[in-house]
Amino acid sequence: MAELIEVGDPADVRLRDYVDLRDVQLRKLLETERGLFIAEGEKVVRRALESGHRARSFLMSPRWLDPLADLLDTTDAPVYVMADDAVERLTGFHVHRGALASLERAPLPDVAEVLAGARRVVVAEDLMDHANIGSVFRAAAALGFDAVVLSPRCADPLYRRAIKVSMGSVFWLPYARVADWYAFPDLLREHGFTSLAMTLAPDAVDLREVAAQHRGTDSRLALMVGGEGHGLSARWTKAADLRVTIPLAASIDSLNVASATAVACWALGGA
Amino acid sequence: MAELIEVGDPADVRLRDYVDLRDVQLRKLLETERGLFIAEGEKVVRRALESGHRARSFLMSPRWLDPLADLLDTTDAPVYVMADDAVERLTGFHVHRGALASLERAPLPDVAEVLAGARRVVVAEDLMDHANIGSVFRAAAALGFDAVVLSPRCADPLYRRAIKVSMGSVFWLPYARVADWYAFPDLLREHGFTSLAMTLAPDAVDLREVAAQHRGTDSRLALMVGGEGHGLSARWTKAADLRVTIPLAASIDSLNVASATAVACWALGGA
Repeated sequence: MAELIEVGDPADVRLRDYVDLRDVQLRKLLETERGLFIAEGEKVVRRALESGHRARSFLMSPRWLDPLADLLDTTDAPVYVMADDAVERLTGFHVHRGALASLERAPLPDVAEVLAGARRVVVAEDLMDHANIGSVFRAAAALGFDAVVLSPRCADPLYRRAIKVSMGSVFWLPYARVADWYAFPDLLREHGFTSLAMTLAPDAVDLREVAAQHRGTDSRLALMVGGEGHGLSARWTKAADLRVTIPLAASIDSLNVASATAVACWALGGA
Repeated sequence: MAELIEVGDPADVRLRDYVDLRDVQLRKLLETERGLFIAEGEKVVRRALESGHRARSFLMSPRWLDPLADLLDTTDAPVYVMADDAVERLTGFHVHRGALASLERAPLPDVAEVLAGARRVVVAEDLMDHANIGSVFRAAAALGFDAVVLSPRCADPLYRRAIKVSMGSVFWLPYARVADWYAFPDLLREHGFTSLAMTLAPDAVDLREVAAQHRGTDSRLALMVGGEGHGLSARWTKAADLRVTIPLAASIDSLNVASATAVACWALGGA
């Protein structure tokens, strides 16, 4: 059973996990250094706990104590109770959904471990935008992919905005971060994956053809998608087993990475 | 040939089209009342002009005059030239891509006119989020749809963020806004469209089945997608010819509307 602690002062040191939630640069540093992440809103807080993440503390206004009572019963983390306007001064915004939790970051599994347990994975290279990371997780999870692998420079899936856009799928869809970027296409091959580099190159294979070959089979497929600016690196594009494209109308030059990932997961997916 | 006018004072009344670009509420009012919209960045400004939108004025720092010289030659709108920090004080943010233009809103065509000229249309109901509107346009344009129809409460496709996310496709993909929301499904029928209501209902038809029937044909299809919170209204869902669903993995309850639209456009599309 959690302990309820009323706090009046937004500068109280016990609340430092929740400071300035809108300051992306500050939060990136602080959350990584302290090994925490923030869940926002009743639904997301529930999903975070249900998927096994340990709470460090909760912060909410009094009216959220009742709706979350069942959940608070199951934890011994402190619950800081504070008026809405003080929460707003502390976090920098109005928390519409009322409840916040600070949770422990579990250590990420090794890439090899994630690959060993998966049949269809999305591999994202240098996706910098938190909303795109969240969308990619949500599409992968919804459309029957088993895991996500991130290049070293991808944004953090446990950043507040990524969590929200992912609908909490970052909590339970297995993911890992590549350590050796250069050698990663070889690692995919060692694990029996056929790697598909999504590209706009005109000589790439039409996604429909690849889908017709693989859908419904139990082939291990790695769908590699590139970052917002320039797409996949030349290294990963060349090292992949196949270069695959979504044919586009002549009038527009690309889909955004989240839409392209959803289309490819749908075409290849296990759902 | 455009006239270059150096301006030092961000409060200069000639620059009032560009004030406080980050204030969504203010901008919504101001842009509608004055019949303008803002294009941001060299690429977007070019696309806006190339697709026939008339410039009211331009605002840029001196270093953008050269890269845009060819374009400025073709217009007689005033070009206000101002230092970066003054532009920032006026607009409320650092304009990374340097060039801004204020353009005239052309009157929207009638829905019937847009329907008459299209074979595949996306119909969006109550999409409130500018990024989602932009993504829906981009996916529709890229995947071979001919037009977009918006319900009365959809967000403005010519809002700065929607333009950006759409990669400028809002400038040339025909679109219209529904006047009579209740009767709109009947209007679709009168124009020979089969209307497909995207829904999560378990008794809806699998998108794969519908796609197998219609892909490659010249049937007129209207893909109806609902807003961020609750999806399509009961009225439009019931009045549609078919209720269609994207089967999802059990572990996640929905795709976001932009991803779902991309998947459905891909499955049904003409590209």
